[in-house]
Amino acid sequence: MKFNEVVQHQIDDYLLNFLPSVSLDLVIFGFHEGQLKVLLLRLKGSDDWLLPGGRVGNQENLDDAAYRTLRERTGLDRLFLQQFHTFGNVNRLTYFSWQETLSRLGMKEIAARLLEGDGALKNWRDVSVGFYALVDYTQVSPTPDLLTDECQWWDISQVPPLLFDHNDMIRLALKTLRRQLSYQPIGYNLLPDSFTMSELQSLYETILGRPLDRRNFYKQIMNYNVLVRLEKRPTIPSSKAPYLYRFDRERYEQLLSEENFSVG
Amino acid sequence: MKFNEVVQHQIDDYLLNFLPSVSLDLVIFGFHEGQLKVLLLRLKGSDDWLLPGGRVGNQENLDDAAYRTLRERTGLDRLFLQQFHTFGNVNRLTYFSWQETLSRLGMKEIAARLLEGDGALKNWRDVSVGFYALVDYTQVSPTPDLLTDECQWWDISQVPPLLFDHNDMIRLALKTLRRQLSYQPIGYNLLPDSFTMSELQSLYETILGRPLDRRNFYKQIMNYNVLVRLEKRPTIPSSKAPYLYRFDRERYEQLLSEENFSVG
Repeated sequence: MKFNEVVQHQIDDYLLNFLPSVSLDLVIFGFHEGQLKVLLLRLKGSDDWLLPGGRVGNQENLDDAAYRTLRERTGLDRLFLQQFHTFGNVNRLTYFSWQETLSRLGMKEIAARLLEGDGALKNWRDVSVGFYALVDYTQVSPTPDLLTDECQWWDISQVPPLLFDHNDMIRLALKTLRRQLSYQPIGYNLLPDSFTMSELQSLYETILGRPLDRRNFYKQIMNYNVLVRLEKRPTIPSSKAPYLYRFDRERYEQLLSEENFSVG
Repeated sequence: MKFNEVVQHQIDDYLLNFLPSVSLDLVIFGFHEGQLKVLLLRLKGSDDWLLPGGRVGNQENLDDAAYRTLRERTGLDRLFLQQFHTFGNVNRLTYFSWQETLSRLGMKEIAARLLEGDGALKNWRDVSVGFYALVDYTQVSPTPDLLTDECQWWDISQVPPLLFDHNDMIRLALKTLRRQLSYQPIGYNLLPDSFTMSELQSLYETILGRPLDRRNFYKQIMNYNVLVRLEKRPTIPSSKAPYLYRFDRERYEQLLSEENFSVG
């Protein structure tokens, strides 16, 4: 199938099986080697990058649609995924902006159809619900969708200008993530099952964008009884090896719901 | 115009001039005499209460639609209004639930039209963006809309079972409001222009649902330089009269944006 046929097919599918005027976009954060990353897609045959997004099936819960989209793009399931804002400005993504994008990509026929407006598409405009996810970078298989060529991690500090209002989305998702650190534990889906205290601290420092005092961090986090200490990480000499920790899942869930957690 | 004509007219208006499948609902909090109140509407000719809600015009920003709806229900403008969650479960408010409500209210004809499903309405379902507002109770003129008889303040502790998922909306709005107290100043739209320290503390205690230490509260809030001390409240004897305060608007806005405020 040619790309313009794919686009046409997708538009028809949307009109029939998905809610009109509602979409969702995902800011998927991953953590690797002291860098916070975000997953971006590149539109087929272009240098335009954008966030992974999706639509809500006529008979699908909004949250289920977000989990489904996340699964389709990362291969991962049952992850931390949270709404952070719904974007509804008139000019955020209109059929004019799509039309412009489609024209630039050589799909003039479809662009013309959008321009004429055949009723269903004429007033087309999406209010988009933004979700952010925290994933273990090492377990993800980035997967492009029908409209995109490439799905790739970008350092949060090196994100290029994105289509539509997607840069704003990343900014607000990061702000929400930082705020969330002040009342909920974090790290469950961003670190491997077992980790050292300095790896956990490094995660906090990366997200907050500032250094933390080692002793205070240790004291604060141990006070919440959310970590289980395991054996030392096998190194030589073993006396210098750091202890490994894992999260106590039950306690972690409890702290998530209590929203009474402050570290850093 | 008969009520069923009003409903019919409103449905036609919605289909033509507003985004399909997106609505908004408002949890409007007011504060009065140590009680936190919420504004509710009663559906015409019934004992069914619900939150004020609205729709987004085809060419209207989501936030503007929320401000417009707030203005229509309260007469107030330029208030603190904030998104807190978007509700998108399939069964939250379907055309079946509306149909059931309409039948109960004696509008069998319209209910039948919904049941048959004439295409546009058959798959009708709304994803609703929840906003909460904080208003000065004394300045509000509660105003019913076309579908409702009555618009009234209810004590937050005495809210009746509401239509659709509106009780869930109030619960989550209150949770968000309490969380917000931990990083943003509050009170600008809930108190009169000038107020005593004990009135401000009472507001915090009411929202948090627990008593606060008077000295700590005073010390914490004065540290933010957000209050301007005015003359004493005129009473006799004047030596015992409490000082009045007002918010420094500029500093208040600054603290709102910094999200680095913690009192209580």
